[in-house]
Amino acid sequence: MEFKKLLEKRSADHWKNFIPTLSIDCVIFSFHNSKLQVLVLKMKEQEHWGLPGGYVKKEENVDDAAIRILKDRTGTENIYLQQFYTFGNLKRSESAFEDYSDDLWHKQRFVSIGYYALAEYNDVSLVVDEYSDSVEWKSIEDLPDFMMDHKTIFDKALVTLREQLNNHPIGYNLLPEKFTMPELQKLYEGILDKKLNRGNFYRKILRYDILNKLDESRKGGAHKSPDLYSFDLKKYNAALKEGLQGNW
Amino acid sequence: MEFKKLLEKRSADHWKNFIPTLSIDCVIFSFHNSKLQVLVLKMKEQEHWGLPGGYVKKEENVDDAAIRILKDRTGTENIYLQQFYTFGNLKRSESAFEDYSDDLWHKQRFVSIGYYALAEYNDVSLVVDEYSDSVEWKSIEDLPDFMMDHKTIFDKALVTLREQLNNHPIGYNLLPEKFTMPELQKLYEGILDKKLNRGNFYRKILRYDILNKLDESRKGGAHKSPDLYSFDLKKYNAALKEGLQGNW
Repeated sequence: MEFKKLLEKRSADHWKNFIPTLSIDCVIFSFHNSKLQVLVLKMKEQEHWGLPGGYVKKEENVDDAAIRILKDRTGTENIYLQQFYTFGNLKRSESAFEDYSDDLWHKQRFVSIGYYALAEYNDVSLVVDEYSDSVEWKSIEDLPDFMMDHKTIFDKALVTLREQLNNHPIGYNLLPEKFTMPELQKLYEGILDKKLNRGNFYRKILRYDILNKLDESRKGGAHKSPDLYSFDLKKYNAALKEGLQGNW
Repeated sequence: MEFKKLLEKRSADHWKNFIPTLSIDCVIFSFHNSKLQVLVLKMKEQEHWGLPGGYVKKEENVDDAAIRILKDRTGTENIYLQQFYTFGNLKRSESAFEDYSDDLWHKQRFVSIGYYALAEYNDVSLVVDEYSDSVEWKSIEDLPDFMMDHKTIFDKALVTLREQLNNHPIGYNLLPEKFTMPELQKLYEGILDKKLNRGNFYRKILRYDILNKLDESRKGGAHKSPDLYSFDLKKYNAALKEGLQGNW
């Protein structure tokens, strides 16, 4: 179907089924090749890239809408998802459909609730939806040009993720089940975009008391086999809920 | 005017002037008598207390709406204001106006954007609006019963404020211009609801490098005159923007 016709058809459905004014945008992070990655898609007829998003059904909690949208885009529900900010400036969204009729659903003023997600790179299926030409992971060091205010949304997600490192554990949804300390440190360095002192990192992360040291090490390679760790999920989830100890 | 008539009159105005689906709720904190305080109001015909709130005009940024609502309720704009979470569960707001017609503006489904505010106790004028019988500061140790999901909104604001202590400086909008270290420590203790070790607190807060020690001390009282401090606003604002140093 021609894209214009598709949008107009969807517009009529959307006016019926979704609550007005509100949209959801998702910043989906993963960690791959020692770099933080973000999921972006190219909408048909748009010059720039966008974040995956959607709308909230009339009989649906906002958080459930975010879970649904995320599942549609990634094929998995096994993802850490957290609301981080709501974007409500005038003219943030209206520009994208200038050539369309003023009553097109997609052309209205939308206030967008941002969720960031942390996903294991290999768990995610890249689902190209009917609005898009392609969907890709991009390293945060090599971002494309974004449409609308999606760069602002991405930036706020990254700042929030960095601040979260001071309050909450991270890594369970981004690393394989078993990992080495250097791998965990690389994840922190990738998120913070800076080198960390090895000794300080070890001391601090061990003080949080969320790791199990396993009775096995990784074989192979030229170096001494590094110790393997996993997260102690009970302590990890408690720290996720109550915050890390020892800040104040 | 009878309350029912007032609501119906406002309802017609609101359908014209505000964007649908969205409301704003404000959790306004101050610090007084060594206790964290929150501003609550008692809406007419409602059994429980509520947070001050309002709606977003069709031609208004969401952040500007929050500033406007805050000014209307407190008589001042000199307040630190920060969006912290958006509350979007079904049935969170619809119950409050059960006895009214289904097309009453106030009875619709609203997704509410929460802002918390930090205000100097003495700067705030308590403005009773046309919907309310009274507006009061309540100590967070002595909260009233809240209407709708306002207790959830309050709890999330407090958790966020506590986490902010790990990322950002606090106090400029809550303390007088000049203050002693024990007063600053009491503020942190009031927010965290726990006693802090004096030596650790001093070391940590001084390491943040946001204080000026003044060439004066507070006279009077039986004790040794305590040193006075003020915030170094340039460094304070930089830390507010970039986060506190030395976390990772």
